[in-house]
Amino acid sequence: MCNDTDSIQAIQWTGDGLRLLDQRGLPADEHYLAPGDARSVAAAIRDMVVRGAPAIGITAAYAVVLAVRQRYAESPRCWPALLEEDISLLAAARPTAVNLAWALQRMRRCVEQIAGDPVPVLLEEARRIHTEDIEANRQMGSHGAALIEANTSVLTYCNTGSLATGGYGTALGVIRSAWTAGKLQQVYASETRPWLQGSRLTAWELTRDRIPVTLITDNAAGFLMQKRRVQWVITGADRVTANGDVINKIGTASLAVNCRYYGIGFMVVAPCSTLDFKLARGALVDIEQRPAGEILSLGGRPIAASGAAAWNPAFDVTPAELVDCLVTEQGVIMAPDRAKLAALKSAGPGVSKFR
Amino acid sequence: MCNDTDSIQAIQWTGDGLRLLDQRGLPADEHYLAPGDARSVAAAIRDMVVRGAPAIGITAAYAVVLAVRQRYAESPRCWPALLEEDISLLAAARPTAVNLAWALQRMRRCVEQIAGDPVPVLLEEARRIHTEDIEANRQMGSHGAALIEANTSVLTYCNTGSLATGGYGTALGVIRSAWTAGKLQQVYASETRPWLQGSRLTAWELTRDRIPVTLITDNAAGFLMQKRRVQWVITGADRVTANGDVINKIGTASLAVNCRYYGIGFMVVAPCSTLDFKLARGALVDIEQRPAGEILSLGGRPIAASGAAAWNPAFDVTPAELVDCLVTEQGVIMAPDRAKLAALKSAGPGVSKFR
Repeated sequence: MCNDTDSIQAIQWTGDGLRLLDQRGLPADEHYLAPGDARSVAAAIRDMVVRGAPAIGITAAYAVVLAVRQRYAESPRCWPALLEEDISLLAAARPTAVNLAWALQRMRRCVEQIAGDPVPVLLEEARRIHTEDIEANRQMGSHGAALIEANTSVLTYCNTGSLATGGYGTALGVIRSAWTAGKLQQVYASETRPWLQGSRLTAWELTRDRIPVTLITDNAAGFLMQKRRVQWVITGADRVTANGDVINKIGTASLAVNCRYYGIGFMVVAPCSTLDFKLARGALVDIEQRPAGEILSLGGRPIAASGAAAWNPAFDVTPAELVDCLVTEQGVIMAPDRAKLAALKSAGPGVSKFR
Repeated sequence: MCNDTDSIQAIQWTGDGLRLLDQRGLPADEHYLAPGDARSVAAAIRDMVVRGAPAIGITAAYAVVLAVRQRYAESPRCWPALLEEDISLLAAARPTAVNLAWALQRMRRCVEQIAGDPVPVLLEEARRIHTEDIEANRQMGSHGAALIEANTSVLTYCNTGSLATGGYGTALGVIRSAWTAGKLQQVYASETRPWLQGSRLTAWELTRDRIPVTLITDNAAGFLMQKRRVQWVITGADRVTANGDVINKIGTASLAVNCRYYGIGFMVVAPCSTLDFKLARGALVDIEQRPAGEILSLGGRPIAASGAAAWNPAFDVTPAELVDCLVTEQGVIMAPDRAKLAALKSAGPGVSKFR
């Protein structure tokens, strides 16, 4: 589960419990929390102890294991109904990323088939979700890196690495793979206000894994493109709707608009667990509004003039027409649209390219 | 020089010296510095005690007055040569904004015509530069506000208000005028990393003058447009080249690219002192690189993972083709280009519209 360019394990099942690297304190403070039940895991997701669409899904799956231990002890007969309360609580922790709902749905389906002690069965399923995510990331890393030519410089956004997934990362997995293949000249990371996932988390992961990284403010990305300092912008996704619209960290859409204007490649890297065929287009997705305080203060200290209000959406919608390629573990879709995504869905597992 | 929507005087000549509101400490700490000579004013400009293209020009003009008092006392005959050293020092304080060079050139031309005590003559010229700037801002406020329809919401960038000019402001002057005319529904300000001019300075000015303001992170501007929450983006400029390219705070170009994609109006507000007919296009302008520490730490505390580098250009270049209108004190130029700017130059003073 780890190699020389992936030394971080933010979500750990220790044998009898869950350990989460508390991402709020990074990079200064590296400590783990051990939430003991579904309610405290839901709080950890809501408070961004753990964030990143795939990581939230995996964490919620392990939380179901914590929950079923309690519920099965409480009632060996009625535990499924009790467990459903915990699952609903977890599902409501954050609204935008679809992986949370996806992982919980997998756990639910597993519950339906259980006879006898549910704990080992659900732990096995949670572990499988975790392991499959890492495997998918490695496949996406390979598919995405294949699109990148030698001597390329790239910009990445937010954090899509081991901290945001089961391990290795989505967009950052592509960057890890391209770096290992010797193709990358320079990796730029956008700081990603207000939570600074870029400067706090992505820079931490990359420097730790000895991949040099240069930070920019989010507002400098367009000028980076104008100066031809990057050839690709590579991001993850929190949800991809049936038409190929990409819901991702606030600011992603602006990057995509600038990429198109300057003729820079825009690559989205997301596992199939992030695809949401139930929603026709991005405008239908519930975009989480975060507290104004995230913009008005930093580390508990006010940074804005008092009396100012703030508008703080956590995600935005990148129109499918701006996405040059969508990298999934099943292959690469160039210029994704409704038809190509439907073909991916019906194709099922197996590496293939949908150009 | 001040009314109910303009209560701030950041640059003051007190009768015998210069007082500068130290913008580094705002909004928490409101104190003035009194630099006594050209060297300390140059340091104040370099260190961003005072910033904003017109404000830098005015400050430098007053610094020439401080300098000539010393130089004339030192040598009533050779003071012009000595003063030129001070002027050169001031001119080198920051490279990108053209108003600094423009104001110093006006002071130089004044020097050439002086017989006798130069101090009152140069003080008079510095005061004139200051007063004319405020007057130009009020004219631009009026011209720009005329373009704005009722029930409009706007986004502004960086700080272009009384803190950035002699008073009233350029882009913020238009917003003040439009607010006074009852046309504005909502004013959004982009926080403007890394120096946070938007959240520290613009929000401070607007709340002080009782104009409600809502902050966004810079990366949220595109989504604000996608959601049709604004109809205009209004910015200032540090330099406008002969073809209409706009050099302004890093991030401006990205806003303009997004405006064009979403069909939002992009208005640049700048006095004629910001026009640089000597440079053919924006790519020729020296873009100041600021220290990496501005991105890697905030308020002296590290915010990024250690080991990360940073790329920190202070300005970017907005291609003229993306500018819907350029508002100057002489009138409004719609879709500015080389020919229209040349016509403005040859027209000289007097309000007219170059559509």
